[in-house]
Amino acid sequence: MMNQAHDSIRAVAWRDDSLHLLDQRLLPQQEQYLVLETSDAVAEAIRAMVVRGAPAIGIAAAYGAVLAARQRFTGDPENWRQAFEEDLDRLQQARPTAVNLSWAVRRMREKAAALEDDPVAALLAEAIGIHDEDILANHAMGTLGAAFIDHGSGVLTHCNTGSLATGGYGTALGVIRSAWSTGKISEVFADETRPWLQGARLTAWELVQDRIPVTLLVDGAAAHLMREGKVQWVIVGADRIAANGDVANKIGTYSAAVAARHHGVKFMVVAPASTVDMAIASGESIPIEARAPQEVLELGGQVVAAAGARAWNPAFDVTPAALIDVIVTERGAVQNPDTEKMRSLMG
Amino acid sequence: MMNQAHDSIRAVAWRDDSLHLLDQRLLPQQEQYLVLETSDAVAEAIRAMVVRGAPAIGIAAAYGAVLAARQRFTGDPENWRQAFEEDLDRLQQARPTAVNLSWAVRRMREKAAALEDDPVAALLAEAIGIHDEDILANHAMGTLGAAFIDHGSGVLTHCNTGSLATGGYGTALGVIRSAWSTGKISEVFADETRPWLQGARLTAWELVQDRIPVTLLVDGAAAHLMREGKVQWVIVGADRIAANGDVANKIGTYSAAVAARHHGVKFMVVAPASTVDMAIASGESIPIEARAPQEVLELGGQVVAAAGARAWNPAFDVTPAALIDVIVTERGAVQNPDTEKMRSLMG
Repeated sequence: MMNQAHDSIRAVAWRDDSLHLLDQRLLPQQEQYLVLETSDAVAEAIRAMVVRGAPAIGIAAAYGAVLAARQRFTGDPENWRQAFEEDLDRLQQARPTAVNLSWAVRRMREKAAALEDDPVAALLAEAIGIHDEDILANHAMGTLGAAFIDHGSGVLTHCNTGSLATGGYGTALGVIRSAWSTGKISEVFADETRPWLQGARLTAWELVQDRIPVTLLVDGAAAHLMREGKVQWVIVGADRIAANGDVANKIGTYSAAVAARHHGVKFMVVAPASTVDMAIASGESIPIEARAPQEVLELGGQVVAAAGARAWNPAFDVTPAALIDVIVTERGAVQNPDTEKMRSLMG
Repeated sequence: MMNQAHDSIRAVAWRDDSLHLLDQRLLPQQEQYLVLETSDAVAEAIRAMVVRGAPAIGIAAAYGAVLAARQRFTGDPENWRQAFEEDLDRLQQARPTAVNLSWAVRRMREKAAALEDDPVAALLAEAIGIHDEDILANHAMGTLGAAFIDHGSGVLTHCNTGSLATGGYGTALGVIRSAWSTGKISEVFADETRPWLQGARLTAWELVQDRIPVTLLVDGAAAHLMREGKVQWVIVGADRIAANGDVANKIGTYSAAVAARHHGVKFMVVAPASTVDMAIASGESIPIEARAPQEVLELGGQVVAAAGARAWNPAFDVTPAALIDVIVTERGAVQNPDTEKMRSLMG
């Protein structure tokens, strides 16, 4: 595999007939894998953000479908399909914004519909296929995206889009891994990414593991960083891309995109084709998950804000296509995205 | 006093011949006052952010000068001035960005130079004068700033600029108090303001105390808030204003200003005239305090980022005058600030 030296982590793994998920809520203090045996446990792990990152959620759900089929077929080999379908529904509803989840569940559902007899082996092969394809897609995107980056560039990323957020290697972080390995990048900056601190907790951990130096900053400092001329590219992932190229991604992405445009800093979105939802015309129709106010009002389980204060905690925002210089997928890169170009890509 | 119902807090107070400072590092969990008897203790309290906010720092330093005079004059009534001057130097150097600190120390120094015999009573009167003038200035700014706000406006503020950051009532938060008391404001949003969380810890506490509803958000969500049309004004304070109207303020202010301009949201800076430094031509020359990486790498004393990760932690950024719709001081409001208008204001 390419760039092995900068790609050592797998957060989602099928081992010993079970799904193993690195519990990302505990990083970087503890590296602990949860072993899941039922699809409901997988749905709960997705909801609780044991696993997060749009592609990783899709892969986990695909393995969840394998667990559902095993449980339901073993329990009632004649009439397993209805309970299995309900399991898939619960998996699909675990989080609303990332479309990869729906995409993976749909693919597993269609595969199961075409199967007779014991479905487990074939569904496991399908899930492993989804997982492997994701890693291959990430490597392809890494190469495609890195081609846009000039030697000596500083880059800023937001949230975590690396091995932890995908089947492995990463989307935006895959591009950074790829460009780093060819010496193109002078410095990697990462927003800490409040409220979950995926940048501080996950991206920093991943890059330190893979020996890529990383400098964290508070999200509010990104515009100042750009004004100081320290970065030439902002590179982020996506949870859903609408047909016109609008991108839903972790809250704070849009702020970085606005600041990038203001400073003439280029803005790249990196996501597999499974993230593109051609059924949604524009970002305005993408459902945005509202998470609990406590994620803002508390810090590490401790209340930080005064009792009586409220909080507004959208987990995602939408960056309009007009602020995006290039969307990179494994099928190709789209510059200055619009509906026509996205349709041609996804054709 | 006006608007007493929405103004109940004093973080800096002279009582029983000592300086009492509300320890803002412990808010909102504990309301604990430190009692300071020496100017070195005051300098350390400023450095350690027991007291923060440009005007409050200036006032604390003025009282610190009283403590210095008392200690030095009592110790050696004949030759107290040199040690006193050195105390003032240390006070002045406690933090570099806020100019009110230098301004207050210079005013106390000049007052002392004109005194003979025991200087303490006259210096205390001067410090109390600085404190009272600040509160009066805040009320004047509150009225001036509120005049710009239309009925039914949503406002967003950053950091803490209220009673905790000033002699009382506040600068930007004073304008919000004033506009709230006349029913102009529909909703107050406050950035949590990483890394110190002044918004979550201090602004929310202050507004809850004074019965003004407040909704917190992570700093990265501000652009999304503006895109949703929820705010018509961003209202912030300042640590130093250059002669051309460029404003140094808490990190993240510039990001909010860029986003405000992008969305046609108005941007107001509120600060007493003592914050204006006509000796500095533009924001490029304002010294920006770099604080410890640990403030980003740790959270509540716990390491949050992986060992080996670095952090870039500028405490302030500079918002260019071109992004500011109005600067409000107690001497008047300056729309679309530039050097000529600032000179005329300060004349």
